[in-house]
Amino acid sequence: MGLTTGILPTGSHNDIADVPGVRVGHATLCTGAGPLVRGAGPVRTGVTAILPHGGNLFAEKVPANAFVLNGFGKSMGLPQVQELGLLETPVLLTNTLSAFGVADTLVSYTVEQNPEIGVTTGTVNPLVGECNDGYLNDIQGRHVREAHVQAALAAASGSDGTVLQGCVGAGTGTMCFGFKGGIGSASRVVGDYVVGALVQANFGKRSDLLIAGVPVGQHLLQYPGEEGPEPDDVPPGSIMMVLATNAPLDSRQIGRLCKRGALGLARVGGSAGNGSGDFVIGFSTAYRVQHVAPAELASFTVMRDDAPAMDRLFLAAVEAVEEAVLNALFTARTVEGRDGHVGFALPVSRILSRII
Amino acid sequence: MGLTTGILPTGSHNDIADVPGVRVGHATLCTGAGPLVRGAGPVRTGVTAILPHGGNLFAEKVPANAFVLNGFGKSMGLPQVQELGLLETPVLLTNTLSAFGVADTLVSYTVEQNPEIGVTTGTVNPLVGECNDGYLNDIQGRHVREAHVQAALAAASGSDGTVLQGCVGAGTGTMCFGFKGGIGSASRVVGDYVVGALVQANFGKRSDLLIAGVPVGQHLLQYPGEEGPEPDDVPPGSIMMVLATNAPLDSRQIGRLCKRGALGLARVGGSAGNGSGDFVIGFSTAYRVQHVAPAELASFTVMRDDAPAMDRLFLAAVEAVEEAVLNALFTARTVEGRDGHVGFALPVSRILSRII
Amino acid sequence: MGLTTGILPTGSHNDIADVPGVRVGHATLCTGAGPLVRGAGPVRTGVTAILPHGGNLFAEKVPANAFVLNGFGKSMGLPQVQELGLLETPVLLTNTLSAFGVADTLVSYTVEQNPEIGVTTGTVNPLVGECNDGYLNDIQGRHVREAHVQAALAAASGSDGTVLQGCVGAGTGTMCFGFKGGIGSASRVVGDYVVGALVQANFGKRSDLLIAGVPVGQHLLQYPGEEGPEPDDVPPGSIMMVLATNAPLDSRQIGRLCKRGALGLARVGGSAGNGSGDFVIGFSTAYRVQHVAPAELASFTVMRDDAPAMDRLFLAAVEAVEEAVLNALFTARTVEGRDGHVGFALPVSRILSRII
Amino acid sequence: MGLTTGILPTGSHNDIADVPGVRVGHATLCTGAGPLVRGAGPVRTGVTAILPHGGNLFAEKVPANAFVLNGFGKSMGLPQVQELGLLETPVLLTNTLSAFGVADTLVSYTVEQNPEIGVTTGTVNPLVGECNDGYLNDIQGRHVREAHVQAALAAASGSDGTVLQGCVGAGTGTMCFGFKGGIGSASRVVGDYVVGALVQANFGKRSDLLIAGVPVGQHLLQYPGEEGPEPDDVPPGSIMMVLATNAPLDSRQIGRLCKRGALGLARVGGSAGNGSGDFVIGFSTAYRVQHVAPAELASFTVMRDDAPAMDRLFLAAVEAVEEAVLNALFTARTVEGRDGHVGFALPVSRILSRII
Repeated sequence: MGLTTGILPTGSHNDIADVPGVRVGHATLCTGAGPLVRGAGPVRTGVTAILPHGGNLFAEKVPANAFVLNGFGKSMGLPQVQELGLLETPVLLTNTLSAFGVADTLVSYTVEQNPEIGVTTGTVNPLVGECNDGYLNDIQGRHVREAHVQAALAAASGSDGTVLQGCVGAGTGTMCFGFKGGIGSASRVVGDYVVGALVQANFGKRSDLLIAGVPVGQHLLQYPGEEGPEPDDVPPGSIMMVLATNAPLDSRQIGRLCKRGALGLARVGGSAGNGSGDFVIGFSTAYRVQHVAPAELASFTVMRDDAPAMDRLFLAAVEAVEEAVLNALFTARTVEGRDGHVGFALPVSRILSRII
Repeated sequence: MGLTTGILPTGSHNDIADVPGVRVGHATLCTGAGPLVRGAGPVRTGVTAILPHGGNLFAEKVPANAFVLNGFGKSMGLPQVQELGLLETPVLLTNTLSAFGVADTLVSYTVEQNPEIGVTTGTVNPLVGECNDGYLNDIQGRHVREAHVQAALAAASGSDGTVLQGCVGAGTGTMCFGFKGGIGSASRVVGDYVVGALVQANFGKRSDLLIAGVPVGQHLLQYPGEEGPEPDDVPPGSIMMVLATNAPLDSRQIGRLCKRGALGLARVGGSAGNGSGDFVIGFSTAYRVQHVAPAELASFTVMRDDAPAMDRLFLAAVEAVEEAVLNALFTARTVEGRDGHVGFALPVSRILSRII
Repeated sequence: MGLTTGILPTGSHNDIADVPGVRVGHATLCTGAGPLVRGAGPVRTGVTAILPHGGNLFAEKVPANAFVLNGFGKSMGLPQVQELGLLETPVLLTNTLSAFGVADTLVSYTVEQNPEIGVTTGTVNPLVGECNDGYLNDIQGRHVREAHVQAALAAASGSDGTVLQGCVGAGTGTMCFGFKGGIGSASRVVGDYVVGALVQANFGKRSDLLIAGVPVGQHLLQYPGEEGPEPDDVPPGSIMMVLATNAPLDSRQIGRLCKRGALGLARVGGSAGNGSGDFVIGFSTAYRVQHVAPAELASFTVMRDDAPAMDRLFLAAVEAVEEAVLNALFTARTVEGRDGHVGFALPVSRILSRII
Repeated sequence: MGLTTGILPTGSHNDIADVPGVRVGHATLCTGAGPLVRGAGPVRTGVTAILPHGGNLFAEKVPANAFVLNGFGKSMGLPQVQELGLLETPVLLTNTLSAFGVADTLVSYTVEQNPEIGVTTGTVNPLVGECNDGYLNDIQGRHVREAHVQAALAAASGSDGTVLQGCVGAGTGTMCFGFKGGIGSASRVVGDYVVGALVQANFGKRSDLLIAGVPVGQHLLQYPGEEGPEPDDVPPGSIMMVLATNAPLDSRQIGRLCKRGALGLARVGGSAGNGSGDFVIGFSTAYRVQHVAPAELASFTVMRDDAPAMDRLFLAAVEAVEEAVLNALFTARTVEGRDGHVGFALPVSRILSRII
């Protein structure tokens, strides 16, 4: 749209699937209208699946780590990722109250691929993140069912690499800076390496929004358009950030990358409000760790911490998260949800006419 | 049984319900026999509920914290407890693969009490811990259903204060030190205060067992009885430790208490093996934090860190966890599960004849 | 200078001393010129003291916490601050290799006020942060001596509230974004509360500098002035961030504030490079904790996490750190150090003509 | 002495120097008698140096990590070790108030070997631990000077592998369980690997002491000998635990090993009292990381987490720390310090006659 943020080059599609092998799929649930009928709707939610590779993740795990910027959230699977440094399932994103059911289905999915789980080998650690989309969605209804999770996983497996953004999947019902949020993605290139980010953006007060450093939120407060004033009953929100890279980083280093990803929030005006669950999950596709291996020892090749590329990877994480949030905002459209609640699309042309 | 461990006095019942207000309930699932038929059985599992008080926990939260000794586990709810220092649901324990469904039911339970969740207030953070009972149980079957969770919660609510131990609830199918494990509990008194522990014991190799410092495990390896040699296909296990106290501690201090609870493992020979998910969750009943409050400020009275009682509370946590594990072992009975797998009861009389 | 960043109002002086009771003092060492003679000079360094209050800090501690964004640094005292949540000495900042000697003097200073330390009471936990100013300074010489530390502490004690910024104290020899860095400070007001930040800015690559979101660094690379191209031998640097507030926060909450302070870095283009030791130390002046108290219990009044003011305090921390870094850059002047190394002042007028 | 603890075999000398390449040296300061004259004496302190290898540690770093069981302590260097996973200086132990001066000398030592530090390369992260020996020692006097540090380092470099224990080096003035503490060491063997521990034992109340699980402390309270009742004015103490291994572990895994080392405390009755700074520092000698390397990537061979040896290494850490504490107690002799304070040697024969 003529707007650039950051100084590093983007990947060819400027999304997380620029990291070779990474694929994304969504299941979008958008039915009903009118007043909230708990358990019935309106439904404005979904589930998003991110696959680090197209194989059997439980059998061939990838190095991973996580960073909790603000732990007001119900993400599942972090303690084990932080302890062992491995991701062994796809990453799924959904709404807060559906997260547990979604995790249960992710267990089913993994057990189907690996029937020995819990019988002749250990259990599995499903990785699920979530945001509260209850401003638009009948979140108590927990409408994301097993079939939706399987559909999102299948969509990711069969993906041609396209990453749909905006009001799709886990972003269907989210709000961001008092506007309609959603799924956003972006990428940055550092030499032979790519860092990609995908976010489920559901955080922020309108007053705080920065775009390329410009306090757009203040301007919009002063000169509201059809969106009117910021609704004061949007819940405090959250953001799930997923980082992928093909750079050869071990889990300690991925943990460092995740911390930098969190910094990206600050560049759009985020300050990790009390009620915002802000989690970063990162993985590398550079090598795999077999679930079963004949030998006691294993060899890995990783980047030295002081390699010049490391600092640029860190900046890439900051920039990719920043732009992923902006892309979520720029691709979302106006959505009316329960009880007349409206998530207005960011008035992009009005804003761009002011910024550029 | 004539055996004492530790130097502090126990509470009147020597269990976690010695902390005033704390109640425990179980639902025990024990059906079927013979070879494993995935999804059908045999079933050797259950769910255990611990209530910090008899009221509405979401409305009246209690200060809490957690410590991860070894994060190879799927416990849910820890990041938020660590961030906010509050527990807002009962603590539920179950088997690993049922944990997600159990958490989903805990959401239902809390939403029923608090129908505004996700509509006019935020969401809820269910606290669920788990162990892998797949050596005896058809864990893939995820047999713990909504009714079982509700039954355990109801049993806790209606409890007269009795804490059933051994092969009950979440301990129905667990193994410990190569013998049948289960639920164990113990308490210690420090002046006006009580520290209670409840564990779901499912960890350890037989060779490592210490009882009151005596290397009983070595003895049993050398002189096996009817239990025969240690089966080599017991999964590495885990232990969930829950600490309760009526001492006025804030979340930072409860986090310190949790670390000491983890030390209790070492006194029975535990060393937190790679595959053992070892989590400690602690809470205090000394004060409550309202979900909704009119004022911006709140006042709390807590113990000074350098109060002499603090060091004794720390020791109480060590001793209570140590004895809770022993109580799990001493109260468990021999259980045959899937595929002829047998969890033999600890040969208590043989051991005591040697120790005392 | 006509430039504003952030949306919250500043305190009356826009520095950390806007927090009532907080005082800052410096000792600045700037002697010699020409080639490096190890142990002799040139000397471009110093020490900066921040006092939470004018009394005896060991006797009357303040609640505190810390956050490590990137632990490539030698800060002292963090483990105890994180464990106990208390600050019991002034915060001192200096150069990396002098930090240990400075801490030793801080022990002397505290022992002089509290002669019972190590005799009839426990020891003291000196809090010292540092940056590597070796690009300009003979850092091996460890020129900061006891007298300088005492001078900085005395300057702080006797301060009228003025906070000198730029090439003073611990900022005398620092570099920032390839220009001369230094000490910077800023503040933000949230209702009755103030959040103040003071930074020792010594980090960043020129290419990355953002001012109010504008990629000034890229512009300066393309159109260098008298400062020429970025020197390629500036060490990777660090930033020490000190946050003060009079809001009634306990140590857990101050830890959350510190995390938000770290986000401020991202708004000036920082991404916490591998070699950058990025530490945040925070304290509140709202209440004190006595070293010796007659009672076992203590009462405190603190802000609820969900108070609306909390989110604004978090944003205040972001904005105060952002502007403190900019103030360090804007107040620094060109300094020539060892071996002809020059830290050029940021070409402010050239930049402002482009931004505003 | 006929007493065995634990089930794993010890190394040939049962000390930390059983890990090939590891060497230990002490400087012991023991002068003066009578009443405390601050700055003059009596002096009962020292410094202990542990070398991971005989080369230049800054140039050839070793993988390392640390765990803080209780952060009431002033250890230096932990944040960087935890961030980068590398140890780049010897580990030095001393008294609390001398720790900063000792670190300063460790900087000098490293700069002498690597004169480019702070000039053409970065700075150095000295690793220093400490305990409060002020019950016997004039700790305000900070009697450990540069020459003593250099002497300890030289003694370690020139060591034939002997590890002196008891009232030597940093253990000269420490107290443990109300008796004279000191330096203790032990080791355990797991296949081709050794885990060694060295502790500076300065913690615990007499009532709590367990030896091989026997509540010896309770017995000694009931039947005191010439040592009389426990003095009530011993400061709360601390313990520094250093773990070395030749097993090929990366820093994440060493962090896990350190956590298990902390469990060893519980087996002698420790419960990490509020005022006890309990830190574990671990390193592996299996590979080295060059300070300067030509390539951006580096390859490492490490043990898989699920290797059977890993669990035994974890148990080895528990047992080695347990026995190291006992060895400190068993090798210490009675020492009279300032003001008639006496640290009585543990009455070993009286105890053994009861235990064995």
